[in-house]
Amino acid sequence: MLLRVRLSDEFYLGPGKADLLEYIAETGSISAAGKRMDMSYKRAWSLVKVLNDAFPAPLVETSRGGSGQGGAEVTPLGRKVLAHYRAMQEKTRAAIAEDVAALHADMSAEK
Amino acid sequence: MLLRVRLSDEFYLGPGKADLLEYIAETGSISAAGKRMDMSYKRAWSLVKVLNDAFPAPLVETSRGGSGQGGAEVTPLGRKVLAHYRAMQEKTRAAIAEDVAALHADMSAEK
Repeated sequence: MLLRVRLSDEFYLGPGKADLLEYIAETGSISAAGKRMDMSYKRAWSLVKVLNDAFPAPLVETSRGGSGQGGAEVTPLGRKVLAHYRAMQEKTRAAIAEDVAALHADMSAEK
Repeated sequence: MLLRVRLSDEFYLGPGKADLLEYIAETGSISAAGKRMDMSYKRAWSLVKVLNDAFPAPLVETSRGGSGQGGAEVTPLGRKVLAHYRAMQEKTRAAIAEDVAALHADMSAEK
């Protein structure tokens, strides 16, 4: 099930942005997170920018470490947004379960 | 809100197929329904084929009228599938309303 929620004229929250947030939280790196999604570095950064611009405070913060290797961190607001998206997926799954079962029954019925 | 439901490995039910069914029911024509969605005739027909192939009986039936003008009709099974999709949209909207409101509040919060 794919759920994409329109939160403003320009901002949609869907599985791509949610997975990206989750992988950044796991890897501490926008580049590594993007790679896991077969997404170019440029595309991953552009999605992070869209996410950060949609809220009054950033969902992902980047820092340049002393070693020259930059890190990325999902902020508490970012984790909250991700949690809302996962909750919406779960609630949707539950809400549509009966209809999905009925459709499956229709699909596998005898002619 | 965009909801796309995976009903088999190859068959997804989303807003495009649902709207197409609805417009075919309204216009009695695959071509007119496709036009309303800015969809080519070929694309509309291909979606109808995907819909019909996914179920044991057709969701859309076509007939060639005596005047040479073919008509299309959404079958009772097709109307049932459309009704399930609309019900899932409604249930999803209700199920995620609280999270959407919380996200809107986060988006418009003071910095």
